[in-house]
Amino acid sequence: MEILQVVGSVVCTLRHPDLQHSNLRVLRSANGKTQVSIDTIGARDGSWVFVISGTAARLACGDPSIVTDLTIGGVIDFWDEDSGQLEEPA
Amino acid sequence: MEILQVVGSVVCTLRHPDLQHSNLRVLRSANGKTQVSIDTIGARDGSWVFVISGTAARLACGDPSIVTDLTIGGVIDFWDEDSGQLEEPA
Amino acid sequence: MEILQVVGSVVCTLRHPDLQHSNLRVLRSANGKTQVSIDTIGARDGSWVFVISGTAARLACGDPSIVTDLTIGGVIDFWDEDSGQLEEPA
Amino acid sequence: MEILQVVGSVVCTLRHPDLQHSNLRVLRSANGKTQVSIDTIGARDGSWVFVISGTAARLACGDPSIVTDLTIGGVIDFWDEDSGQLEEPA
Amino acid sequence: MEILQVVGSVVCTLRHPDLQHSNLRVLRSANGKTQVSIDTIGARDGSWVFVISGTAARLACGDPSIVTDLTIGGVIDFWDEDSGQLEEPA
Repeated sequence: MEILQVVGSVVCTLRHPDLQHSNLRVLRSANGKTQVSIDTIGARDGSWVFVISGTAARLACGDPSIVTDLTIGGVIDFWDEDSGQLEEPA
Repeated sequence: MEILQVVGSVVCTLRHPDLQHSNLRVLRSANGKTQVSIDTIGARDGSWVFVISGTAARLACGDPSIVTDLTIGGVIDFWDEDSGQLEEPA
Repeated sequence: MEILQVVGSVVCTLRHPDLQHSNLRVLRSANGKTQVSIDTIGARDGSWVFVISGTAARLACGDPSIVTDLTIGGVIDFWDEDSGQLEEPA
Repeated sequence: MEILQVVGSVVCTLRHPDLQHSNLRVLRSANGKTQVSIDTIGARDGSWVFVISGTAARLACGDPSIVTDLTIGGVIDFWDEDSGQLEEPA
Repeated sequence: MEILQVVGSVVCTLRHPDLQHSNLRVLRSANGKTQVSIDTIGARDGSWVFVISGTAARLACGDPSIVTDLTIGGVIDFWDEDSGQLEEPA
């Protein structure tokens, strides 16, 4: 599951009806690539999160008819490695 | 869900019958890579969109027997981050 | 669906039995990466095609027990963008 | 199945409920990219492992309702090639 | 289906039980990236092969409960393009 940072919310007036009223966030990778993900857990802007891709992303929406390929799996507080410490932005 | 820009429509006389009469668009990523996607929502040329990949792309066609791996999920009007503001082309 | 060019046919005496007698083509991307794809529509050498990946690739074979992850979806004649015009090789 | 190195465990107070109490590890590729994976076999920090992605990652959790796209498949002791010998860290 | 070269066999004392006694090979891409794949057809070291990814990789094991995302699809003897001729190592 990729590690990305939440950078904002998407305003999207023309969207596929099978996305329903999902909360769409913009996420950015360490190398600057942006993607759109569904957020069901309420991650704050600036949080580092890991994301679930593929069929599991639909299952993680509670309703597998929601047509996403990316859903936030969790907010990373930190990990316990010496050189890879990641502090969550306050 | 990747963020891409619609750059045109594909003219394709020899196509797989299980794509039926789907509307095929050419999309381009920020780093210049082009892909073909099905469009069921009517995105205009120049629009920035996010795309649904994998099994969800077929579900998003209404008919899962349509053999696509990429379908447009929505047109991005803008997002609310300071440095990542994206204006939709007029 | 990725855009690739057909560069030849694969000769492959030792192949997985569940590929049956599929027509295997070698395709090359714009950046030079080669892949093997099943072709059910008869694309000519030199043609630019788009390819269907994942579960949809198996469905596109007519028989989902054929174990492919890539099948040709259509031959691109051209697209209608000013700067991205792609002429099919004669 | 990609080859990655275990670099630590994730502390994650806000996580998707369908991940249940899975053991979440941070893995790093040879080129420095980090990902989060479920570990059901108990790989030690520093171990080189190969990972299972996609639907197979959920099946490898024993419970396919666990919404992961990455699960550790095995710890690599070494492989038998002359130039690619990989010693497991002690 | 990606084109990779077989470089060796994996010795792996701690492996996921749902991989059963599968034959695990290390494969390397043209740009040097290594991956682990199941081999059911008996490819020799040094052979160039194409690999099946995703759900099709499990189907290609005969037993879809085997949790792989990569299985060898065939050994490439050569292909018939002028500039892309690939000789199998003797």
